[in-house]
Formats: sequence, structure tokens, C-alpha cells
Amino acid sequence: MPELRQNLATREWVIIATERAKRPEQFVQPPKDRVEDRPIWAEGCPFCPGNEEPDLERLRLPNEGDWQARVVSNRYPALREEGDLTRHFDGFNCAISGVGYHEVVVESRLHNTCPALESVEEVERTLVAFQLRGEVICADPRVEQLICFKNHGLTAGTSLLHPHTQLLGLPVVPYSIRARSEEARRYFDDQGVCVYCRMRAEEERQGSRVVIASGHFTAFVPYAAFSPFHLWIIPRRHSSSFLSITPEELHDLAVVLRELLRKLYFGLNDPDYNYLIRSAPEHEHAAAYLHWYVPIVPRVTHAAGFELGSGMFINTSLPEESAAFLRSVAV
Amino acid sequence: MPELRQNLATREWVIIATERAKRPEQFVQPPKDRVEDRPIWAEGCPFCPGNEEPDLERLRLPNEGDWQARVVSNRYPALREEGDLTRHFDGFNCAISGVGYHEVVVESRLHNTCPALESVEEVERTLVAFQLRGEVICADPRVEQLICFKNHGLTAGTSLLHPHTQLLGLPVVPYSIRARSEEARRYFDDQGVCVYCRMRAEEERQGSRVVIASGHFTAFVPYAAFSPFHLWIIPRRHSSSFLSITPEELHDLAVVLRELLRKLYFGLNDPDYNYLIRSAPEHEHAAAYLHWYVPIVPRVTHAAGFELGSGMFINTSLPEESAAFLRSVAV
Repeated sequence: MPELRQNLATREWVIIATERAKRPEQFVQPPKDRVEDRPIWAEGCPFCPGNEEPDLERLRLPNEGDWQARVVSNRYPALREEGDLTRHFDGFNCAISGVGYHEVVVESRLHNTCPALESVEEVERTLVAFQLRGEVICADPRVEQLICFKNHGLTAGTSLLHPHTQLLGLPVVPYSIRARSEEARRYFDDQGVCVYCRMRAEEERQGSRVVIASGHFTAFVPYAAFSPFHLWIIPRRHSSSFLSITPEELHDLAVVLRELLRKLYFGLNDPDYNYLIRSAPEHEHAAAYLHWYVPIVPRVTHAAGFELGSGMFINTSLPEESAAFLRSVAV
Repeated sequence: MPELRQNLATREWVIIATERAKRPEQFVQPPKDRVEDRPIWAEGCPFCPGNEEPDLERLRLPNEGDWQARVVSNRYPALREEGDLTRHFDGFNCAISGVGYHEVVVESRLHNTCPALESVEEVERTLVAFQLRGEVICADPRVEQLICFKNHGLTAGTSLLHPHTQLLGLPVVPYSIRARSEEARRYFDDQGVCVYCRMRAEEERQGSRVVIASGHFTAFVPYAAFSPFHLWIIPRRHSSSFLSITPEELHDLAVVLRELLRKLYFGLNDPDYNYLIRSAPEHEHAAAYLHWYVPIVPRVTHAAGFELGSGMFINTSLPEESAAFLRSVAV
């Protein structure tokens, strides 16, 4: 019998479609060109060493000698740093100027790698770049929301093969983020506890959906996972902002994130995926009710008209089976 | 300079990325197999004449002689008709039984067609099927929300080529639909008018984004369209429920919908797309603040990590240019 499950934190329902459910092995991707078989360097790749555009550079790590990772402004930014935040209302429609930040983290000198194949140190470097640039971007009073994310593979929205991630600093709090914030506040008002802390503790207690529990993080397939192998990495220490992460936590996050991405890479044959850092809106950083975390969304199914029309998802796998499968993948 | 625009009704922001904007012609799809070059009948296609499974049949149109369209239960339904609506709460997580409806409208006897190539009468038949089955589904007190939609093409989420659409009857009101309902109610409380009626009237007054204005409907690219060629068809007569459509309106909707889909087919070389019918939750049908409408979403770009993380979209086309382009496509 199919089941609808509700995510405790977001209040969103998902259909767990048991009638059409597949076993985890059925999501293994068909054979394809391996990342490591690509050239190590590509002419015309804007991220390969030798092709740097110095005027776009924002940060290089380490800051002496050859860079191992670098942050550049997006050459075709969705938002621009220059200009004032102006609001235009014609009596009907509302627009604001597209000011903000749009930067790219070049994760590696190598054209033919990806986080699953990188060392812990390399994965950690990307997270350090998020933190360092995030601090600068969020110090700008025009910025309301920081979004950090990775698109891995064509169906996850990237056309550039060289491993990279992105940061955006938005001049508004997006609707869906505000809605999540309001739900978390309501839960805190009613229960006196952060709903994300509660969720993490309960997932640990139940255990069946946990994939990794490290010193500082718990990674699990949520009870109401909206797609197969959908993962949340939640920090044990309560904090609303990723930018508050300590160096020790950051190292631990790199270990956990890399291990999960390796489980996907080796267990499902390198599926396309997105990962994000969900951090509180800039002006809610002191909130006791918000909690930063890292979702990973493998793109092993397609969203269709139903998802567009309802905002709900149909998950064709059992979260408990997805978790057991990922636990079993040795990396 | 990029611009953020807000949809008046949904309150969602979209980035109009002028720095990376493309001209409408740049979204023309690469050459591909034409729908009409496929076989007229396919062995093994569950929707082709001769392959019917009588036990799945719910409706046939016309109801005598050879069927021209039919509605069947989905063979692998996301929700099941049998069983009670039960709620399970373990003190932490909430689930309800997956009862509801999941049906398929087989639009045509022909394997090798699609709405853009069908006659008005054929497109109208699908809408009649939505209405007739929608009435039956919504008469079930367990159903809270009807969703009707079409997935055209692989990236829009379908793998079956034979033209078909789907209906789901859900036992909950999805989160995002409830949010839209609350925003519309708030607008009505403040302004005393349905926000969708207001939006339609204002789009007609401004004119630059209107593609078709018929006797009963206005079709336009919304001011805050979230993707290129995103379209809304709004009925002129205020009504919250698609099921209240009159036969004359239904015929007019078929004309408008078909013409828009033809403009996409011939103007952009048959892009994948979804269309939906957004109708009010079952228990809000008398609402003065809600209005049914039909969005069409061509899949000419990919949602990526940014969209997953923010719920916001980056539109790489100007809505006014998309609309002008579609107006210019002769069909």
C-alpha cells in the first residue's frame, strides 16, 4: 500500500510509491564515460591552469604558490555586485535591481576529477572557500541570503566538466526559504526545541535511515525523502549558520560529505547530483529555531508535471532501503 | 542589469538574468525524430488500440463505437482507490495511507501524434475527460486535491510516446498549494479582489506579454515567468474550480491550448513541456480568492542546485521577448 509521509521540519508531504517501488540496485546508472578517463587538462576550459582570467579572481587557496582551489566571479553572473538596491513598483508589479553575488569555486587544478575522487583535503578546501567567501558576501548589507551549491552532471544542471561549485548572495529571502523558516519557528513556539535538532536525534534513535554518524554530523535518508537516496547531513551542534562552523567541524564535514559522494559514485555508478548548504537567512542568524544542514539530491529520477503542479514528489524507493543500500557500499 | 521580479499571486521572486539572456531563437531545439514519423501503431504500447486492458477502463469517449479517447487506471498507481484514509503518528513522524486516484487519459487512437498535431476536437476530448473523471474523483470525500497534467517528452518526465495525460486525486492539500491559497486569501483580504482576476486584467492592459486573448481566456507569459516561454492561460470568468467550466468555455480552452502548443511545436521545434490544470483544493471551491488556470512550462532549460536550494528560478529570457516571439509564430 502506498504511503504519504510528512517531513517534520518542512511539513511537505511525499508519496512513497510502494506499488512502483524499485530496489536500490535498479537505480544503478548505465555505463558511461568515466570522469577519470577525461583529459587532465582541456584547452578552452576556463577553469584549467593557464586559462585563468585574473580580473575575475576573488580568492586562491593556498594563497601562495600554485593554487589548488580558487574562487572567481561568474563571467555571466545572474546578479551583479555594482549598483544600488532599488525597488520599482508600478502600482501592480514589483521588481528590484539584480544586485548580489555570483561566484564559482574551482575545486581542483585537475579537469578530470570530482569530489568522490578527490582527497579529504581537497573536499575540505571547497568548504573553506564557501566559508571565506560567504563571510565576505554576507558582510554586504544588501545580501539577505547565501546559497552554496554543486551541480554534478548534465541532468543536475551543469555543462562545464571541470569540477566546480557556486555561491550566490541574494538581495531577497526566497519564498520557500521564508516558508521553512516560519514552519521551524512555529515548531519552536509549540515545542520549545529546534525541529532540526529534534529530527536528527530521532533519526539517530530510530537508526534505520542513518548512513553515517560522525563526531559532529549525522547523515541520513530523511523519513519523507522526496527522491531515491536523498540525503541530509545535519550538524549535531545547534547553529543556524554554516558560517559559524569551526575548523574541526569543517574537517569532519569534508570527511562525511566525501564518503557519501563516494558511496553514490561507486554504489550507483556516478549518478548526477546536487548538493547544497542550507543556511539561515542573514538576518535570522541568531535564531534558536533554525539549523543549517547539507542536502544531497542524486538525479536518478525526473520531476514531471505532477511535481510542478503539486510541489509534492513521488518517491519510487523506500527511504529505509536506500539507507541500507548506502550503508552497505564499501568505499 | 539583472532584475528580480515578483509574481503578484504566488509572491515568488525570479531572477531575470539579462547578463546571460538569450534571444528567443536560441531556444529552438536541435533537430530530432519527428512525432509524426513514428509508427501509427506500436506493438507492446499499452495505449494503442487492440492492447486495451478492459479491467483498467474508467471512461471511453465517445461511449459508443470505436473509442477516440479513454481513461484508464494507472497500472502502477502512485495512490490506490481501495482502503481507508488512516493516519499514523509515532509521536514524531506522521504518515497517512496512500489512498486516492491515479488515472491516465489516452488522448488518441494514434501512437504518433501530440496535442500540437491534434484537431481542436481531439484536444477538447482530453479536457472533457479531465472534467468527467475529475467530477467522479472529487466526489470521493477522501480526495482533497485534484491534479491534472501532461508530460510531453523525456525531460518533462514521460517515457511512453503514445499521447496521454494524467489525473491524480490526493488525500492531502500539498504544502505549496496551501501556500498559494494563503497568499491569495491575504490579497483578497487587503484588496477585496481575486489576485488572479487582477493579474489577468493588468496583463491585458499592459499587453506586452499577452500571446492570445480569446472570448473566454487570456494567455500570457507572466511578468515573473520562471523559465523561457512559461505561459499562463487564465479564464476571464472568476471561478476557483476547473470543474465549473461550461461547454462553451471548454471548447474555447481547447482552441487556445492547442494554438499555444502549436506555437511551441513549430516555433521551437517541439520542445518537451508540461501543462497542468491548477484548480482549487476541493474544500475551497466556493472561495472568492482562488482562481483556476492552466500553466504551460516548456523544458528548454534545466533546474539545478540553485533552484533546489532557493526555490527561486533564474530565467535566461525576457518575458516580453518570449511573448513577442510566440505571437509572431504563425500556426
